[in-house]
Amino acid sequence: MVIVMKTGATNEQIETVIKRVAELGMKPHTVKGEEKTIIGCVGNDDILRSHPIEQFEGVESVQTITKPYKFASREFKKEDTIIDVKGIKIGGGNFAVMAGPCSVEGEEMMFSTAKMASEAGARILRGGAFKPRTSPYDFQGLGEEGLRYMQNAARQYNMAVVTEVMDVREIELIDKYADMFQIGARNMQNFSLLKEIGKTQKPILLKRGMSSTIKDLLMAAEYIIAGGNNQVILCERGIRTFETYTRNTIDMNIIPSAKELSHLPIILDPSHGTGKRSLVTPMALSGLVAGADGLMIEVHPQPEVALSDGPQSLRFNEFQELMEKVKKYLEFENKRIG
Amino acid sequence: MVIVMKTGATNEQIETVIKRVAELGMKPHTVKGEEKTIIGCVGNDDILRSHPIEQFEGVESVQTITKPYKFASREFKKEDTIIDVKGIKIGGGNFAVMAGPCSVEGEEMMFSTAKMASEAGARILRGGAFKPRTSPYDFQGLGEEGLRYMQNAARQYNMAVVTEVMDVREIELIDKYADMFQIGARNMQNFSLLKEIGKTQKPILLKRGMSSTIKDLLMAAEYIIAGGNNQVILCERGIRTFETYTRNTIDMNIIPSAKELSHLPIILDPSHGTGKRSLVTPMALSGLVAGADGLMIEVHPQPEVALSDGPQSLRFNEFQELMEKVKKYLEFENKRIG
Amino acid sequence: MVIVMKTGATNEQIETVIKRVAELGMKPHTVKGEEKTIIGCVGNDDILRSHPIEQFEGVESVQTITKPYKFASREFKKEDTIIDVKGIKIGGGNFAVMAGPCSVEGEEMMFSTAKMASEAGARILRGGAFKPRTSPYDFQGLGEEGLRYMQNAARQYNMAVVTEVMDVREIELIDKYADMFQIGARNMQNFSLLKEIGKTQKPILLKRGMSSTIKDLLMAAEYIIAGGNNQVILCERGIRTFETYTRNTIDMNIIPSAKELSHLPIILDPSHGTGKRSLVTPMALSGLVAGADGLMIEVHPQPEVALSDGPQSLRFNEFQELMEKVKKYLEFENKRIG
Amino acid sequence: MVIVMKTGATNEQIETVIKRVAELGMKPHTVKGEEKTIIGCVGNDDILRSHPIEQFEGVESVQTITKPYKFASREFKKEDTIIDVKGIKIGGGNFAVMAGPCSVEGEEMMFSTAKMASEAGARILRGGAFKPRTSPYDFQGLGEEGLRYMQNAARQYNMAVVTEVMDVREIELIDKYADMFQIGARNMQNFSLLKEIGKTQKPILLKRGMSSTIKDLLMAAEYIIAGGNNQVILCERGIRTFETYTRNTIDMNIIPSAKELSHLPIILDPSHGTGKRSLVTPMALSGLVAGADGLMIEVHPQPEVALSDGPQSLRFNEFQELMEKVKKYLEFENKRIG
Repeated sequence: MVIVMKTGATNEQIETVIKRVAELGMKPHTVKGEEKTIIGCVGNDDILRSHPIEQFEGVESVQTITKPYKFASREFKKEDTIIDVKGIKIGGGNFAVMAGPCSVEGEEMMFSTAKMASEAGARILRGGAFKPRTSPYDFQGLGEEGLRYMQNAARQYNMAVVTEVMDVREIELIDKYADMFQIGARNMQNFSLLKEIGKTQKPILLKRGMSSTIKDLLMAAEYIIAGGNNQVILCERGIRTFETYTRNTIDMNIIPSAKELSHLPIILDPSHGTGKRSLVTPMALSGLVAGADGLMIEVHPQPEVALSDGPQSLRFNEFQELMEKVKKYLEFENKRIG
Repeated sequence: MVIVMKTGATNEQIETVIKRVAELGMKPHTVKGEEKTIIGCVGNDDILRSHPIEQFEGVESVQTITKPYKFASREFKKEDTIIDVKGIKIGGGNFAVMAGPCSVEGEEMMFSTAKMASEAGARILRGGAFKPRTSPYDFQGLGEEGLRYMQNAARQYNMAVVTEVMDVREIELIDKYADMFQIGARNMQNFSLLKEIGKTQKPILLKRGMSSTIKDLLMAAEYIIAGGNNQVILCERGIRTFETYTRNTIDMNIIPSAKELSHLPIILDPSHGTGKRSLVTPMALSGLVAGADGLMIEVHPQPEVALSDGPQSLRFNEFQELMEKVKKYLEFENKRIG
Repeated sequence: MVIVMKTGATNEQIETVIKRVAELGMKPHTVKGEEKTIIGCVGNDDILRSHPIEQFEGVESVQTITKPYKFASREFKKEDTIIDVKGIKIGGGNFAVMAGPCSVEGEEMMFSTAKMASEAGARILRGGAFKPRTSPYDFQGLGEEGLRYMQNAARQYNMAVVTEVMDVREIELIDKYADMFQIGARNMQNFSLLKEIGKTQKPILLKRGMSSTIKDLLMAAEYIIAGGNNQVILCERGIRTFETYTRNTIDMNIIPSAKELSHLPIILDPSHGTGKRSLVTPMALSGLVAGADGLMIEVHPQPEVALSDGPQSLRFNEFQELMEKVKKYLEFENKRIG
Repeated sequence: MVIVMKTGATNEQIETVIKRVAELGMKPHTVKGEEKTIIGCVGNDDILRSHPIEQFEGVESVQTITKPYKFASREFKKEDTIIDVKGIKIGGGNFAVMAGPCSVEGEEMMFSTAKMASEAGARILRGGAFKPRTSPYDFQGLGEEGLRYMQNAARQYNMAVVTEVMDVREIELIDKYADMFQIGARNMQNFSLLKEIGKTQKPILLKRGMSSTIKDLLMAAEYIIAGGNNQVILCERGIRTFETYTRNTIDMNIIPSAKELSHLPIILDPSHGTGKRSLVTPMALSGLVAGADGLMIEVHPQPEVALSDGPQSLRFNEFQELMEKVKKYLEFENKRIG
């Protein structure tokens, strides 16, 4: 930690801070500058999180140095983490595609989707049974019935299941049907949910919040890992900005950034990231080349009548075309499709 | 609803859309423009939320006209809503101040804070017993013990209690101690929580999410009201922007905007909104004059040693000075302090 | 300056950096932490702006300590600066209102506006003769003819003139008519223009850019002052965010923040800041109470037919009502209206 | 254009608006909804830009339909535009790389850079002679001397020259040395500059503003084209968001979006877009695959001592490695390197 004292801070004020630093178990080293005095502190910064120093008289700023997340950090684990979802690998050169409708709407559509997607190369089936709808008047999902349809279809076509869990009380039920839990963007800082999900044994797909920094995202991953479950896959799905042409703004920088700061795999969801069908394929490939370990793509047999997210869902033929390209690029880059 | 067809859309495409509109129970009226055809649709837009039209061939855009929130809207209820929190009124010319520490840290500090704050004119005591901390390693709150301290102190000094509920499973417990539930910014779109809180009978303080639009905020309020509880107070606490000098950016425009769009009261939290003690007082008064129905202010007997949010907490004397000014401005504006 | 070396930086890397710091004329002080080494550097940080150290091997981060702006800073000048615009004072307890149409559209409207505004208490007349229009097909302004109308009307009613200068080649011409130059938000980082305007002798109204931080704003002020003109008035006019209900988002925090960091006066433009007539008055008063040294308000005799910015322009009676309130609040706060 | 009247708008108010629409030369078609009346207007929306209707009594909103930019739009020109910079083609399947230092610092470094870059496959040399520095105390560029060094080096190695013009008065001088003019992000809405640059005959590289929407960008392109010069290349260089880990946030969505809305080529600048050397290569390739028509990359023989932008500049060997990959990807995608 580095404490910068204000220009004109008195000796007394500086002494008070130095004393406090020592009380907190850190070693202070004072550097008297031309204008300001700097106090470098040796020891673990974490104690400052509960005993902040900013408001002591004369203090201008406090800079923590140690990262607030540990288990999620690349400094903790140098090698890429490879997550195994029912035998499908993600990370460390293994690429996986998750596909399916936004909402599970019925059994037949889940079967036709699973058949098409698995033949195209997607190994993980997605679909929402419990939907986070912005309006209380929107379709909220089929619940357990939806989970059942999804699981049946997945089993038929040898796919794994990922679905969103929104409520701590649903975890047990969803655990019967899902192979991976998804934490939605709006729940990335639902700390109760993160704590509970950390107690589960299955992989977690953690979506970045709409205005979450990469640091916030890794802190959320840290919550889950600290809770006991280190099988976390990060997911970029677009952030909120001033641009209105697209539903969200994909922050592609986060893909290689995450690989610098963390060992966890990171995938891209270009469906929510753009909100426009016509942009999904170019952005999916762009993300692959940026280093993503996978994709999550919304597909629907007939997007015009989809109960949610129709405008961004790919038709079956569009998804097949995308997968052909994905396979070509993966081969070109020497990666394996999981 | 207004559908705009692309330049060059074929007659067949236009006919398909017109047919779909009629199927959905709306009356289509076609206007052929120089370049584009517009289809105005008479009826309730809501059906489109689950049966979107955007992706039909030839459609360029779809504009909904009816607001997505109803019960929260000013069109539904012309008069200001006045919320009653244990006899303390908020809204419609009644102004209330909620004060207290970020976290309940002990019994003594809650008593000294409640004494000082109530004497200064604040009628509602705040404090966190279950804390949403961004790091799993931070102090998470005293739990039920903290609730007890807060209630005892509030009763002693004739104050009401507001505290955050983060987990649907805590509602019952917190209900024993709180007079008002707070939904935190990070949980504004925790739809499970909104649905459950809608089943309670006490007033709800709903904090705006860090990147939520005013429309998102009113939709969240709608969730709660649709769930059965219409005692909702909105709270602006700063949004996330590119500015780093302050912790958040207070969007003061939302105060008069909310009064145009909704009948619900709206208060300001300048503590989180600025993150800096020195800015709290000017922004509190600025918010009052913008039309806020109240304030939520963090105070602490000794901010330097606060376990959370020390840098933005007012000292006791600073809070007393603020309240003196608040009373003067309220008198000047002919408002009542609740 | 404080340099933080990466965890695991070699002694050789540390030595290289220490050597470089000394070469640059600063005194390095090394503090070996548990994980990382910190090098505090005594001397003027500015040299780093042209000789950055970030990319030396082993360096994790570099923190400058001295502020990048000097003449604009409160550390340079403790007392509030009072700007004199043709006898009208702004700053240090003096409040001034600038009013007028977005664009100068004709002579008659300028006269009727100047008459009404001056009688209501506004001392400075605004109007655009050279307009920054986002579309090349929009009305670009009346040019010199417009300047003449504005000056005539201002002289008739004993007002000063402020108008925007967009092009370095126009400065000389505009100088004949204006008492204060306005630098528009889109030109806040038009460094050529800032350098030229620094050579003038008249006060400058510097509008904050749509995505400029307070630091960017003060750096722009520094440009002008360093150029030779220290009569700078800052202006908050709203920033760009994700909120679409208002045209911009007023960052009210900047008013008291600017007063902490700088001695320059700061005013508020609630017309552009909201983009909605109905929000102008509450936000104007909110800004006054936040500590603004003045307001810039767009008015128009008939907003429905205004050639630009009609939706945010106040009608004459609305402006008069606003001014009545402004005077009452200024009296209440013991400030003088300039 | 579509006008939506408020719920409860009177017949008189509706009639006034209909009358106004006709006065403006458009044909009104009224659709009476259950709650609101909609008036579809046939004719050219543009007249509204100078005669807005929003503030007529009873009007809730006005939606323009025709795009505000014409010559830049894909509707105006279906085929991709191919820009020719001294024989080097950009757009329509032709990919070009522009490389060089942030600032021209001396003759020798320009020669070594041009040699290395051209051999690696970059055909356009960049460098700043007139620098937009955020601080008046920073190195402002070598001026004409710098232009000369750049031109000599470019000629020696058969490269074209692109350099930024910041001031309308510099255009003539820079025209002697540059083959393409660059308009910097901070000047994207410097309308005076856009108008002047539209009078030139050489290609223009137009950088997106830090908080400009794609619509703003295309309007700026429209300014230039309307001025007489249609040789415009768009450039994404990152936008300003809340994320602080990277200097800017690359909005990769804009690459395929621009190709939908416009026929103009668009390139990516991953150097400013990330601000971090380690992220430049992955983002460069990501942009190529997203559909960019080229790249602008900052390189420096010795980034540690670069006078500006050192942290994001690639070393010579890093640039050579990037170009090897670029060529492989272009070949894979069947594109030509210009």
